[in-house]
Amino acid sequence: MHAIGIDIGGTKIAGAVVDEFGAIVRSERVPTPAGDPQLLEDAVVAMIESLSDDGPAAAVGVAAAGFIDAAQSTVYYAPNIHWRNEPFREKLEARVGTTVVVDNDANAAGWAEFRFGAGRLVSDMVMLTIGTGVGGGWVLNGKLYRGATTSAAEVGHTIIGRDLEFGNNVPGDPFPQRGSLETLASGRALDRLADYAAIQYRDSFIGKMLATKGSIDGHDVVAGAEAGDEPSLWCLRVLGERLGIGIANAINTFDPLEVVIGGGVSRAGELLLGPARDAAFRHVVPGLGLNTTIRIARHGPRAGVLGAALIAAQEYAEDTGQNLQGAISGEAAP
Amino acid sequence: MHAIGIDIGGTKIAGAVVDEFGAIVRSERVPTPAGDPQLLEDAVVAMIESLSDDGPAAAVGVAAAGFIDAAQSTVYYAPNIHWRNEPFREKLEARVGTTVVVDNDANAAGWAEFRFGAGRLVSDMVMLTIGTGVGGGWVLNGKLYRGATTSAAEVGHTIIGRDLEFGNNVPGDPFPQRGSLETLASGRALDRLADYAAIQYRDSFIGKMLATKGSIDGHDVVAGAEAGDEPSLWCLRVLGERLGIGIANAINTFDPLEVVIGGGVSRAGELLLGPARDAAFRHVVPGLGLNTTIRIARHGPRAGVLGAALIAAQEYAEDTGQNLQGAISGEAAP
Repeated sequence: MHAIGIDIGGTKIAGAVVDEFGAIVRSERVPTPAGDPQLLEDAVVAMIESLSDDGPAAAVGVAAAGFIDAAQSTVYYAPNIHWRNEPFREKLEARVGTTVVVDNDANAAGWAEFRFGAGRLVSDMVMLTIGTGVGGGWVLNGKLYRGATTSAAEVGHTIIGRDLEFGNNVPGDPFPQRGSLETLASGRALDRLADYAAIQYRDSFIGKMLATKGSIDGHDVVAGAEAGDEPSLWCLRVLGERLGIGIANAINTFDPLEVVIGGGVSRAGELLLGPARDAAFRHVVPGLGLNTTIRIARHGPRAGVLGAALIAAQEYAEDTGQNLQGAISGEAAP
Repeated sequence: MHAIGIDIGGTKIAGAVVDEFGAIVRSERVPTPAGDPQLLEDAVVAMIESLSDDGPAAAVGVAAAGFIDAAQSTVYYAPNIHWRNEPFREKLEARVGTTVVVDNDANAAGWAEFRFGAGRLVSDMVMLTIGTGVGGGWVLNGKLYRGATTSAAEVGHTIIGRDLEFGNNVPGDPFPQRGSLETLASGRALDRLADYAAIQYRDSFIGKMLATKGSIDGHDVVAGAEAGDEPSLWCLRVLGERLGIGIANAINTFDPLEVVIGGGVSRAGELLLGPARDAAFRHVVPGLGLNTTIRIARHGPRAGVLGAALIAAQEYAEDTGQNLQGAISGEAAP
């Protein structure tokens, strides 16, 4: 018996089969047809069918960046895909014939890390996902905290400032804009920093990448940074400092034992997390940070698919009274 | 049967007797001898004794701005008074002979508003106290959320930015500093804005106050604003805009149904809350703010003493199995 998790991102759809021990036994990914809800639905159905080759799943969990109703059924609004009041659970259930649960992608990632990852030993954990946008998932007292109308943890929209304290140390940073964490520290922000740095330093690794390919993005920056390219390292330092302020705000707000950083940009690892950790501990209340560990998600960008499957398995257990045995069914409801 | 609440602020100690229906039946206030822990202890004991004239209290709750241990006994650190690892519960219990509970002042205020004030009809409520500093109290799923090491809700230390979006609209604002909410939106920040505006506009209400008295503070600004003094209104608008960003961050983080503003500066009422509300709704995720009411604490600056008494009454009920009857004993533990 197994569950399927699907994570619909701004650029790709990831899917996985998760066994009863919380292990990903098979995974797939395709580009997101973000502009067309019907094509998107078809792509998700095709992925579920493909992942069901070896037998039907007990339940399917779908994670997406957006506002989802308390019944885990309807996506009110998803900024990166063209959904408005989309009854996605109902539509999918009619087509795939299994229980479907829809949840916020950062909630799903947070739940996966809490159950089987960086937060498995604590009761209070903050998850930040740095992908196309910036998402958050709060596990408080061992449960996902969703807020009064299931819209908590919109941390990407919190304001951390426009002309930051370290602004003078990053001359020429051209993208302060509105001052939200997402504007300043998302994958899109990294893309903009990459463009800026590549144009400034045409002989650098990313400068040459830009000349060769015509456009560059965060992946090129991470590759450059791993090769020691200074402008690439600069991009990750700037992004890390901004992310660090977001982390500090989360620590000052929640006093968690674990802060976990996931999403595609977390692939940069310590090259991003080092500067982020430095900035975070400079901005927390003195003493408070001593209790908190900041680390990259154990499941990396796959935390979303894993968490979606775990939440679906939980729903299945509640609906049928039948657990998917072992670790996946767990004792704590999300 | 009644409980006593004591709220130790940076400038004054407030005390009250709270009856079994959650009503304040008697109150006192004295200046805080902030520089001397022994004088402070003596002042608190004297106030408890004075408030016990009509009979001993079942329990005493003490609220203070600071970090307090999970046993509600020791103040690890209090920024505005000279306490470091102060075993205040033990000391007081030895002198007054009743159960004493020590808690964070914003937690106490939040609990009072949740039980008997602006948050009494909801399960998720955010309290911000704007006094000498800025404090926070989070009521999530009907309980005070304290974090892994009882240091959650240090919202005054969250960074909202240095050179804010509306910076160009408040020319000459000389106090951006580190960019924390407390630096920008506390009573101390209002004092600094008052000085600045009074010097710039010597013929204004606060300009004349400054010339007459030699120094002015937030109280003068509120008096000036109520009299229509434009520089005073400017001070409250600037403070309100900054506070509004703090409120927006809290809404984006928690998705609460109620945001409650307390502390001494909340006496300014709508003159502060109007600009704060405008700024908050400009900075929340579109749609999210529709669910949330932002209002001044029903119990105003007295929320701290009331909440301290309620928390103490709860402790008494748990220790003795004997409720202080009626509303004060309540069903929900803080």
